[in-house]
Order: sequence, then C-alpha cells, then structure tokens
Amino acid sequence: MLIYGTEISSRLLLGTAQYPSPKVLKDAISASHCDIITVSLRRESSAGSGAGFWDRLRDLNVQILPNTAGCHTAGEAITTAHMAREIFGTTWIKLEVIGHSDTLQPDVFGLVEAAQELTREGFQVFPYTTDDLVVGEKLIAAGCEVLMPWGAPIGSGQGLRNPDALRSMRAHFPELPLIVDAGIGRPSDAARAMELGCDAVLLNTAVAKAGDPAVMAQAMAQAVEAGRRGYLADPMPKRDMAVPSTPVFGIAELA
Amino acid sequence: MLIYGTEISSRLLLGTAQYPSPKVLKDAISASHCDIITVSLRRESSAGSGAGFWDRLRDLNVQILPNTAGCHTAGEAITTAHMAREIFGTTWIKLEVIGHSDTLQPDVFGLVEAAQELTREGFQVFPYTTDDLVVGEKLIAAGCEVLMPWGAPIGSGQGLRNPDALRSMRAHFPELPLIVDAGIGRPSDAARAMELGCDAVLLNTAVAKAGDPAVMAQAMAQAVEAGRRGYLADPMPKRDMAVPSTPVFGIAELA
Amino acid sequence: MLIYGTEISSRLLLGTAQYPSPKVLKDAISASHCDIITVSLRRESSAGSGAGFWDRLRDLNVQILPNTAGCHTAGEAITTAHMAREIFGTTWIKLEVIGHSDTLQPDVFGLVEAAQELTREGFQVFPYTTDDLVVGEKLIAAGCEVLMPWGAPIGSGQGLRNPDALRSMRAHFPELPLIVDAGIGRPSDAARAMELGCDAVLLNTAVAKAGDPAVMAQAMAQAVEAGRRGYLADPMPKRDMAVPSTPVFGIAELA
Amino acid sequence: MLIYGTEISSRLLLGTAQYPSPKVLKDAISASHCDIITVSLRRESSAGSGAGFWDRLRDLNVQILPNTAGCHTAGEAITTAHMAREIFGTTWIKLEVIGHSDTLQPDVFGLVEAAQELTREGFQVFPYTTDDLVVGEKLIAAGCEVLMPWGAPIGSGQGLRNPDALRSMRAHFPELPLIVDAGIGRPSDAARAMELGCDAVLLNTAVAKAGDPAVMAQAMAQAVEAGRRGYLADPMPKRDMAVPSTPVFGIAELA
Repeated sequence: MLIYGTEISSRLLLGTAQYPSPKVLKDAISASHCDIITVSLRRESSAGSGAGFWDRLRDLNVQILPNTAGCHTAGEAITTAHMAREIFGTTWIKLEVIGHSDTLQPDVFGLVEAAQELTREGFQVFPYTTDDLVVGEKLIAAGCEVLMPWGAPIGSGQGLRNPDALRSMRAHFPELPLIVDAGIGRPSDAARAMELGCDAVLLNTAVAKAGDPAVMAQAMAQAVEAGRRGYLADPMPKRDMAVPSTPVFGIAELA
Repeated sequence: MLIYGTEISSRLLLGTAQYPSPKVLKDAISASHCDIITVSLRRESSAGSGAGFWDRLRDLNVQILPNTAGCHTAGEAITTAHMAREIFGTTWIKLEVIGHSDTLQPDVFGLVEAAQELTREGFQVFPYTTDDLVVGEKLIAAGCEVLMPWGAPIGSGQGLRNPDALRSMRAHFPELPLIVDAGIGRPSDAARAMELGCDAVLLNTAVAKAGDPAVMAQAMAQAVEAGRRGYLADPMPKRDMAVPSTPVFGIAELA
Repeated sequence: MLIYGTEISSRLLLGTAQYPSPKVLKDAISASHCDIITVSLRRESSAGSGAGFWDRLRDLNVQILPNTAGCHTAGEAITTAHMAREIFGTTWIKLEVIGHSDTLQPDVFGLVEAAQELTREGFQVFPYTTDDLVVGEKLIAAGCEVLMPWGAPIGSGQGLRNPDALRSMRAHFPELPLIVDAGIGRPSDAARAMELGCDAVLLNTAVAKAGDPAVMAQAMAQAVEAGRRGYLADPMPKRDMAVPSTPVFGIAELA
Repeated sequence: MLIYGTEISSRLLLGTAQYPSPKVLKDAISASHCDIITVSLRRESSAGSGAGFWDRLRDLNVQILPNTAGCHTAGEAITTAHMAREIFGTTWIKLEVIGHSDTLQPDVFGLVEAAQELTREGFQVFPYTTDDLVVGEKLIAAGCEVLMPWGAPIGSGQGLRNPDALRSMRAHFPELPLIVDAGIGRPSDAARAMELGCDAVLLNTAVAKAGDPAVMAQAMAQAVEAGRRGYLADPMPKRDMAVPSTPVFGIAELA
C-alpha cells in the first residue's frame, strides 16, 4: 500500500494515547508489528511527559504520524500542524478538526479548509473525516491522497455504525487508500472494515483500554490481515436459502 | 482445548466438501494449519471418489472427524456412524440428523435420540445442533462433551444469525467446548464467534466456494486466532457516548 | 384470521401479568381493542387475587386464552390445562413448557409431548415455541393449528432476535397462523413481525411495564395494523444503490 | 408540532413523485391524512404534466412544500426556490442540494451556503441533510428551524442506516423539529424513526412504488402514530437476561 509515495507494509496503525504506562504502549506497538503510530502534538508538547516519551517512541523504529487531536478550528489545527512539523520533522499530519467536545466528531467544514491550507503549504494530509462521500470528494480536491473515515465516534468501541456508507466510499474511490479511523472495538470490527475493501485501520482505545493491550494489539493485527485476505480471496455470496455444504452421493447403499 | 480427552491446538476445523479439486482441498487444509477435518461418510463411500480421496487425506496428518451429513433420521445416522467407525477407524462422529432438505437444519429430536444411542455404544459424539439451550442440556445429558451449534443454515454464509443465543449458551455452559458449525461466511463472522467466547469454529462452504480457497482458509485461521485473543484480552466495553481517545494537555501553550 | 374455527379480528393479543393495578390492565386492554387476552392459571388460582380479578376480566368482553406459564414439565402443563378448562370453561390453552428458570425459553421436547396429549384430550393448543422449523412440524403433526414462535426471551424487550428464522417459518407454513409471542419491546418490533408475514403478535411486558401502559397498548395495536397493511400492500424491494425518488424533467429551463 | 410557526397535526409528510398516476397519488394522500406534501418544482414546471397536476393537488387541501430536487449547486437550488415561491405562493422550501447523481446524497457545503442565502431572503428552509451533527449546527446557525436528516439514500428503502447518529442528533437538539427524510422502506422503519424521538417522517418511494400505494400510505400513517405513542409512553428498557413476564404464585397447589 502506497500512501504519499511511502510504502506501508502493515495495514494496522496505532494511536498512542490512554495507555496505562509507556511500557505497555511500547509492548503493544511491538506486538502489533505496525509501521505507523499517531501521536498527539498537544500531548507531546505538554510539560512532564514530553521528552522521555518521544525518545521511547524513536526507539521503536516506526514512522510517526503526528495528529491535531483536540483542535476545534481550522486555525488551531494549522498551528498545531506547524508545531508538529517542527518537533517530529515530518510533513505528514493526521488532521483532526473536532466539531463537538463530547462526540469528538469531525467538523467537515473546518477540516476541508485546513486541508486546503496545509496541502498548499506542502503537508501530506491524512484527514480524519466522516463517511460522507461528498466531503471525501472535497478533501481529494484539496489535495488529500488518503481518506480516514470514522467507523463510529472516537473511543466508543461501537464498531462500524454505517458499513453501507463505507461500501459506498470504496465504490466511488476505487483507487484511493481508505483507512477506517475511530470506533473499532473488537477484532471482528477491524476484519469487517477490511472485508468491505478498506485499505487499513487506525485504532487506539480498543488496544489501550483492553485488559491486556499487547494481546489485543496482536489480535487486531491478525484481524486486519484476516479481513484483507478475506477480501482478496473473493468470498462466497450470502445465500438466503440454505443449501447443502456436503453434496450427498450413494444414499441408496445405506438402505 | 481438550475435547474427549484429545488436545486440539487449532481452533479452526474444516469440512472437505464442494472443493473444485482434491488439490485445492489439500492446499486449503495446509494453509489453515487445522488439526481436524470432517468428512462425509456418504461421500467417501460413493463409487469413484472414494479410495484415492481417503488416501490423500491421510497424507495431511490431520485427524478425521467423520460426519453423518445427509442423514434424515436417527436410524440412518446411527447406521452411518457404524460405517464411519469401520472405514475411518475412529469412534469420533460428527452427528448430523437433518430435519429439512432445503434448510438442512438439525432435527433436534432425532439428534438427541441418536446421540443417546451412539454414546451408549461408545462413540464420542460431536452434535451439529441449533442454538437452543435446552436441547444443549439434553445432548449433554446424553453424554456429549462438546456442542456444535449452528451460526446460520449450512452453506448460507449468513454469519451469526442469533449471537444472543450463542452468548446465552456460553453463559450456561461455561466449561463445555462450543464449536460454531455452519453459516460462517466471512473472517469477521469467525472472529465474532470467538469473541463471544466460543471455543472453535467449523466451516466448509466459505472456504470451498471462495475464489481462492487457500487464501480464505488462511484468512479464517487468522480470524479465529484474532477473535480468541480478542476474547482473552478483555475488550473495552462499548460506550454509547463518545469520549476522547486522546487526552489533551497544554492547550494554553498553543494560544 | 381463523384460529381453531374462531374468527379473530384483532391481530394483537395481550398478556395480563405484571400490571401495576387491575385498573391499569383494564385500561390497556380497552385501549388495544384486542379480542383475546391470555391469563396465567397459576396466578388466577392463587389466594387473594383470584375471584375479583377474574370477574373484572369477564366484564371486558374479550376471549380468555388460559396459559400454563410457570410449568416446567409436560405433566405440570397438562395438569394446569385441566384446571384451566375447569376454571375458564374453555378448551383453548396457550401451552408453555418452560425449559429454563432464567431464560424462560420453551422446552421443545416437553412441549411436543404435552401438545400431543392435550390435543388427544380435545384441547385446542396454542404452543409457545422457539423459531425452530422442525419443532413446528412436530407440533403441527401433534394437531396444533397455530404456532406461537418467540421473538426473543420472555420479558426481554429485545424484539426479533432472529427474523430470518421467522421468515423461514412463514415460507414453510404458508397457510398456518403464526403468532409471534415474547420478546416484543417496541411498536417497530411488532410492525416488523407483521411485515415478515406473521399473522398476529402476543405481548405482555412491553405494555405492562411501559410508563403509560394504555398509550403503549394503543401504539402496539396501531403498529400491528401498520405492519399488516405494509405486508399486504406489497412493499418496494430494498435497493443497494440509491435511485432518485423525484424524476427530474425540464432542467434546461432553469439555465 | 410547530414548524416555522405553523401547527402541523400529521407527522407523516409525503412526496409526490413516481406515482403510477395522479389518481393513485391523490388516493394515497387521502389515505395518509397528511397535512403537507412536497412537490418538485422541476417536475411541476415541465411541459405537459404541469398545470393539471397542480390543480389536482390544490383540491387536496394540503399544504405544499416545494422542493429543489435535482439541483446540484447552491446557485441552482436558490434559483429553483425563487421559482417555487412564484409558482406555489409560499416561502417554504425543502432545500435539496444533491452531491452525487447516483446516491443523491446531500452536498452539505452547498446546502449550508444555500440555506444561508435563502434564509436571508426570507424563506423558511427545510434542509434535506445528512445525519451529521455539526452540519446540523451550521444549518441552525443559518436560520433553519427544522432539520431533515436522511435515514438512507433516497429511494433505497433501506430504512435507518445509522440510528445512533439520529439518536445523537435528538440528544443534541432536544427542542428542534427533526424530520427523517429519505430511505424509509417499511412501516417498521417509520415507527423506529419516531421511537428514536424524531418528530416526523417524510417519505415518497416506499408509498409510490408499493403494490398498493393507498394501503401503504395508510400503513405508514399508522406506523408513524404508533412510533410516536411508543416514544411518549416511555418504553421498558431492553434486558439482556430474560425475566418472567408472568409472575407465578401458588405453585404448591398444583402438586
């Protein structure tokens, strides 16, 4: 999978917030074999947690995708992106423009505005967006080469609330990398996202808040691969009426 | 996982019907790393396909679980079990007593009757049953040490039609091995069955009828492992209201 | 709708348990315009609540369908049916043989056994059963001219846990009255049961435990009619891809 | 229900497109007892069907809500609204700005822009929008006093694809009239929308394309009332574990 010209091998991306400890975070990242982790600039730059945390991540040999979590306007997000470029030395930015304090859903107006500006400035924007097709088109027109539609609200663990909308995005953007971001709660959710034809999954809370984050990270990595293989293997169609899975020959010989 | 005193390492069991060729079947079994395959006695004993097919399976170094697919009465199933013991040299029997030609659903009355008789005769019965708790109790009373509830009609690929019923079985039989048998269509279905706490998954059509059976077999094996790990890792609860997955510090410093 | 030769005009049947007061029960029954109510013999015969309760129901001018709620064996249910015939002066009996104290699900073995005996004795049996097609066939063979499959466990309000199974029953028993009994929680659940082609709905807890039982009774009655009309009106098929609902003419004239 | 100062008694609104004949349309409207119908300006102004059609609608004594179906830009929609005001003599406008020819989904950017302009000009705007909360806020800020979120793509009959999003809108705009517009296929879908707390339902294809549109119109009207009453009656909560709906007394006396 090629995103902004970079070959990505793992189709699971991990967030780094909410872990019980840096050690647990590190173990989860290792167990997942992911290539890319996303880091909140605001967290990173906060007093206390900063330097050591950043050093630890560097050791992991994964690519950092800074995000603008917590930004509620295009202006805030752009400022945060500038700081992220400075601190992390990358023009990649996971763009979050939050429309609501409680649902943490994207403000698609602010998102498109910030994406236009950041693309103009040379950033490679990974927009956290809704499953709205038309918004997706505007983000693509703004220069985004990847879309990150939500599955459900951040941290809800509800899985895919509207799989038909994701199917529709896949159908309309057949070539564009689609990364489901937010809402994944169980490995089966991650597998299903991949079976719908999405290219990757980004998740955070489901691993960080599991009883055993490292085991869950491994489970998610397997589920993503399973779903991808299931997609590529061309699954059987669902059938309304049951049909025998075991063709029966030679019944007479039992008489 | 211990079933009838035998340690089973893979939690994916595969059926052997409907494959385009013996070679494709063999490749799928290898790709899945499964320990147990189920074989239809009626198919096996039919003219033409028999001997060579059986020889090929022997090479695979997997355990054979003969089934009574195609039997519509307890009497037929018992007769078939006797033949299976003869041919395959095992007292294991996957017991199917089919109640309908089109839905292929279990006849739970014939099933319990046949389970009682076969257990008395020393068989280790793996009953293909519905998700009915009370039927499960009768099968256990008949001596079954494993239950194989359906997810959906055989060959339908519909996934889990009634996950609540499976959850209920898990809650009522906390120690008993539960193997979801029939209906699985996608890797996410298999993962979900495991996340509900089921111990294993048996499937056939979803692999045999996939465009690429070996890749789908591998996908299913990964999905089963992912779901099992997801269950063991103690997943986060679903939340109705979204909460931030990225705690935000130091907002002031962006002003 | 003709059941056991009796013309039933309302397709909503109500249970009489768990109401806050006899007055509320009476108001709910009136609001629902139902023809048939089901009454627990065990409750009726209990000291204290009995005679007055029964007198009140008589005033309502509805047909009483006594039930065997609380019976856990065929023998108990048969004894209770005898008492019900005595007390209520009817050979109608809603047959419940409960398999589990907590899920209150049917024991289909005891159910078929009791149905055979009661039919032989001249009762008109309304069996509370699962959504198992093959069990349905055995009940029909036992002489039942109506089936009452559950939607979900009694009192759960979960709605229809397995609509595909109900669809399958409808397809296999095209002429037989099917009454969904248990599990309905919301008017939309009742409407959906009717849209699947079921002939009627029996419910209790959803009305008795609503904040305003009389209003909920009316809501359920309307929903049942709405669902029935929806079924008869031959609904449009679902479409995967959206199509315009407003055909557009004369676009040019806006230029 | 008060919308823009007008008291609306029926909570079902009907579209007027795609009916087999004006007679069938008229019968469906009568059967539904609806107060408001929506009419496509583009259809109305097209050669041939226009004048007679409009005269017939006038006879029905319902309020006309003209729509901008078929408009793909804010500019087109605004022009169409001007024409609608002229032809229908009303400042009410159901605002559709379509983002895609095939899914017919709203372009929320064009929608907000057109809503701002039309409100400024004195129109009462009924915006056909997605279930995006933040877009809803922008429409309210633009002066809309009602929102019309979709249930599913226009004409798909899929029902409510994302009920959680509608619940979220209800929670965030507790006082604002919410009318689910598009996607309703069955009476149970309409009932469910109302049970979620929505104030009304607008539908078209499900009635126009039913085998018997007048019967379906009546079914939908009942379902909407049933769902509203179900909402007001304060339904029981769903319970995970079944509980008895028939409390059992006096078991001993059956011994």
